[in-house]
Amino acid sequence: MILFPKNFQKLINHFSDLPSIGPKQAERLVLYLFKQSREKTEDFAQDLHDFATEVRFCERCFHLAEEDNFCAICRNTKRDQTKICVTEDPLDVISIEKTNSYQGLYHVLGGNLSVMSPEEIKRLKIDELIARVKKEKTQEVIVATNPTTDGDTTALYLARTLKPLGVKVFRLGRGMPTGGDIEYADGITLSSALEGRKEM
Amino acid sequence: MILFPKNFQKLINHFSDLPSIGPKQAERLVLYLFKQSREKTEDFAQDLHDFATEVRFCERCFHLAEEDNFCAICRNTKRDQTKICVTEDPLDVISIEKTNSYQGLYHVLGGNLSVMSPEEIKRLKIDELIARVKKEKTQEVIVATNPTTDGDTTALYLARTLKPLGVKVFRLGRGMPTGGDIEYADGITLSSALEGRKEM
Repeated sequence: MILFPKNFQKLINHFSDLPSIGPKQAERLVLYLFKQSREKTEDFAQDLHDFATEVRFCERCFHLAEEDNFCAICRNTKRDQTKICVTEDPLDVISIEKTNSYQGLYHVLGGNLSVMSPEEIKRLKIDELIARVKKEKTQEVIVATNPTTDGDTTALYLARTLKPLGVKVFRLGRGMPTGGDIEYADGITLSSALEGRKEM
Repeated sequence: MILFPKNFQKLINHFSDLPSIGPKQAERLVLYLFKQSREKTEDFAQDLHDFATEVRFCERCFHLAEEDNFCAICRNTKRDQTKICVTEDPLDVISIEKTNSYQGLYHVLGGNLSVMSPEEIKRLKIDELIARVKKEKTQEVIVATNPTTDGDTTALYLARTLKPLGVKVFRLGRGMPTGGDIEYADGITLSSALEGRKEM
């Protein structure tokens, strides 16, 4: 029985290792790459190599950085240096940046206090956040961890740790998502929406 | 608004270009790559580069080849040189090989006679198949295009073209798939199963 050529199989393995991609889909993706122009795939390989060697974590906020060791947000001195928005992930930073309605800094934890093992919790950038709040002229911390039990636990822990340092700690507002349907909203979301009602 | 670092964004674009991967999934895949060890991602880049430069089509049957210009099946002289199994895709060859129940050669068309444009049809390896049947000592051609209207059209066309050359042309058997459910089988499948009934 003769199956894939060695280099073909290696690439299938790399794609199957990615989350949400099964072995059959990996085979199809690699076949697709094989059918497109060799130049395009070589480009892909080159960009993947550059990515592996050049993208790193920002030394200050642990968002994505390249070129020097700070991210574009930390390098921008025009941003409000008194606010830090704490997220679980760099993708959350991107989502908040897309709204164009926040001008402060960020701090990426790299996860939340959840089902993680003690070593994983040690890897979260919590100590680094406390050090920043102590050292920088931070006045507000907005905890933008996900609105889940784990995200809430993390937020509560951060609030308890940071408030004694004399900063205000906020959590993102909770309520109905725009475009949502009251009929199908879950009870907890609806309760928070009632609680967070705004006068018109 | 500051979004992804340049090298991060480039890689997202490469992943979004792949079939069945949307932009959000591409972002998550690239973030996953970023979080794994740099060595692993550099390996991926190296293997992708090797793949782009080393995997090619077999000169005889258009299956996947590397090293010299023939695939492992064509290089294996122990295989039955009188039989050619015609498939649409290299992945179909792999599926048939996995059954371990075919010992002949293959010929990969690279698609079927379907909604394709005339230029795309010209790219199908039909002339090459006819040349092989004329030149090699082929006695049997098994058309293993997919059991769809397009696959059947292609099979019919090949049968008409090849039979005058004095070879036997077969199509894969049709009927109920093993583990299938008669109650839910479509009428065409059930008719072919009745037609193709075997004495026990």
